[in-house]
Amino acid sequence: MSAPIRFMSGARNYNPADLRIDGERLWQALMAMARIGATPAGGVKRLALTDEDRAGRALLIDWARAAGCAVSVDAIGNVFLRRPGRDNGLAPVLTGSHLDSQPSGGKFDGAYGVIAGLEVLRCLADAGVVTERAIELVCWTNEEGTRFSPAMMGSGVFAGKIPLVQALAEPDSARTTTLAAELERIGYAGAGAVGGRPIHAYFEAHIEQGPILEAAGKTIGVVQGIQGIRWFTAHIRGADAHAGTTPMTARRDALLAAARLIEAINRISLDHAPGGRGTVGRLVVSPNSPNVVPGSVALSVDLRHPDAIALASMAGEVEATFDGLIAAAGLDGSIEQTWYSPPTAFDPACIEAVRRGAEAIAASSMAITSGAGHDAKYLADICPAAMVFVPCKGGVSHNESEDARPEHLAAGCQVLLHAIMAKADEPD
Amino acid sequence: MSAPIRFMSGARNYNPADLRIDGERLWQALMAMARIGATPAGGVKRLALTDEDRAGRALLIDWARAAGCAVSVDAIGNVFLRRPGRDNGLAPVLTGSHLDSQPSGGKFDGAYGVIAGLEVLRCLADAGVVTERAIELVCWTNEEGTRFSPAMMGSGVFAGKIPLVQALAEPDSARTTTLAAELERIGYAGAGAVGGRPIHAYFEAHIEQGPILEAAGKTIGVVQGIQGIRWFTAHIRGADAHAGTTPMTARRDALLAAARLIEAINRISLDHAPGGRGTVGRLVVSPNSPNVVPGSVALSVDLRHPDAIALASMAGEVEATFDGLIAAAGLDGSIEQTWYSPPTAFDPACIEAVRRGAEAIAASSMAITSGAGHDAKYLADICPAAMVFVPCKGGVSHNESEDARPEHLAAGCQVLLHAIMAKADEPD
Repeated sequence: MSAPIRFMSGARNYNPADLRIDGERLWQALMAMARIGATPAGGVKRLALTDEDRAGRALLIDWARAAGCAVSVDAIGNVFLRRPGRDNGLAPVLTGSHLDSQPSGGKFDGAYGVIAGLEVLRCLADAGVVTERAIELVCWTNEEGTRFSPAMMGSGVFAGKIPLVQALAEPDSARTTTLAAELERIGYAGAGAVGGRPIHAYFEAHIEQGPILEAAGKTIGVVQGIQGIRWFTAHIRGADAHAGTTPMTARRDALLAAARLIEAINRISLDHAPGGRGTVGRLVVSPNSPNVVPGSVALSVDLRHPDAIALASMAGEVEATFDGLIAAAGLDGSIEQTWYSPPTAFDPACIEAVRRGAEAIAASSMAITSGAGHDAKYLADICPAAMVFVPCKGGVSHNESEDARPEHLAAGCQVLLHAIMAKADEPD
Repeated sequence: MSAPIRFMSGARNYNPADLRIDGERLWQALMAMARIGATPAGGVKRLALTDEDRAGRALLIDWARAAGCAVSVDAIGNVFLRRPGRDNGLAPVLTGSHLDSQPSGGKFDGAYGVIAGLEVLRCLADAGVVTERAIELVCWTNEEGTRFSPAMMGSGVFAGKIPLVQALAEPDSARTTTLAAELERIGYAGAGAVGGRPIHAYFEAHIEQGPILEAAGKTIGVVQGIQGIRWFTAHIRGADAHAGTTPMTARRDALLAAARLIEAINRISLDHAPGGRGTVGRLVVSPNSPNVVPGSVALSVDLRHPDAIALASMAGEVEATFDGLIAAAGLDGSIEQTWYSPPTAFDPACIEAVRRGAEAIAASSMAITSGAGHDAKYLADICPAAMVFVPCKGGVSHNESEDARPEHLAAGCQVLLHAIMAKADEPD
């Protein structure tokens, strides 16, 4: 490439169609990052604000500096790697994800979104591109929420949804230290204000963490938004009774009622296909003895849907079914909502930028809704945002066997580049 | 009463219709026994071969000696209190139950059968009755199986179904001592051979430990036998999956399959009404997390029926249902029978003796099958046997709130007396 030419407003010093990310470099960077906290089983354990997290951050910063980026760290430890634009008074385009992992996590959850953003910056640097707006790569602090609660903490504080002082005071899961102390210890207690500045657009690349793209044979998921979630805790109370002496018709069997509730939740979720999801993941029986009719069951209900009205309808159906089952069986019980996370709809223009990126590289794609939470959820509250999904093997994530194909990762990165470039030259 | 008259074969020195047990004395003896190991909540904790068990045995022996009985103890600690007959070469009529309790047991489970037998002996002593055969009251060692395993140990050794050496070597649940050592410690390591001698008939009075008599408004349960029991352990294996990202149709949800199995077991048991009972009492979910589709469930299945063929049919239906559910859901799994206790049919003549006893006192009665195991189960293997049930409040047993009405207990004791006397003068 020729030396950088100063960008003139309304013109470009580059042809977006000529920009090509380096899939091999992307893969090698992912593998290098995966060696930090690597587990014998091939996974990654890089918990937030541990020595491994520090090492991962340091490696990322080295790479980004070499690509011409300036480093800043805010007070919650979010790391911003800024590639200047022509007009640095304009709000930047932001991309990124997280480097922290689950205790038995994989190589791609989070790390892919960070390294894909890095590869975009490296590509632009190699091509000598000057964009109108700055482009920033961000590594959010503590997305997983394993060592410190809640999840998506760095982006949550950035978006003003989680108070900084509360996050800093958060004890670790072992209750031996605090987030503030660990930020200090690993050298990432930044001086910068958290958030409060305009972001022109946010894009996040991520493995799907589900089986939809793989099953459909698609390379790119054009993420429309993030499902809403309602969590409930249900208690069913009947009467402990002797399994031998108590006739079937004289029983007040809490587990039988729970079984019927589980079946009903499955049916209700199928009735709301394809968006509806319903899960009983936790169920505890008491007294849990083979020859005692269970007198008490506690269980969790997880309902999800991309549409808030449909999700509310599912919740109403589950509650009504619960009440009916309990009454019909002569039992006592309660079902209480314990958490509600409303659906997030991503920005139509950002979604369209992702879709056109896939189209530009002739990658097969489909619209998809994220079933998991991501930092993009909080960003969508303060700026136009969207996500790019790529398939992961068997839909498996939060698992050391998490895997993804290099060609899918490269395609997702190329789509990310297209989406970023679609926004990077926009006027205010 | 006049002094005892020596009984002449073919004639009686008493009119059975004149013999009346003393309901008040029966109640007071039950209450006195219940003070040994009494709990603050009104129950009894008198675990096998503890100091409380020793005290209960001693009180019983004092009472029985005062009623003219000779005491013997066998090598497993079963206590026999023998009231001689005219021909002591004939096999005796045996009655009794157990004095050990559950950790949070009640006043009547076991103790009622022992004290009712004592009251019969006291009544005969008061009346100066001489029977053709000796009548023996037995207190069986360790019926509950709580402190030492298995349950019904003393009667099991007596019937030759449990090896004596195995029983003696059994560790206590805390694994700090053995049954042999505890027998020695409390002074009940008898020298007598265990069993191996003919018993003419065995009768055992017991609270029902179920709700059937109370619901039917009957005073006496004429027990026809003891249900057969089949226990199974089932394992269902699907795949852990993210509750948010995994579509309903892509799930391999072990808990949903378990729910369907629970529903099917209930239906199969109802199909085999009134004898069929089916219970899933224990169910363990893995990983048991609210936002993870359960990949694994382990559960117990307890099937009961008084008829062996019907019980086998129930088992076959449950196994076939399990296989069908697993296959239809694309899951893996296994269901294994872990225990089979065949049904016990009591002796028709002994059953008839109980029925006539109820008829004689104009007590309301009904045929009933025992849902729980009792020492009578082992005795039925070696001699004609039957049981007398009386109602207990709400069917509740193995609970400190266990309760029974004095008039019901007295009626059951009177029926026991009639049944014993119907056999006590029989020739060989």
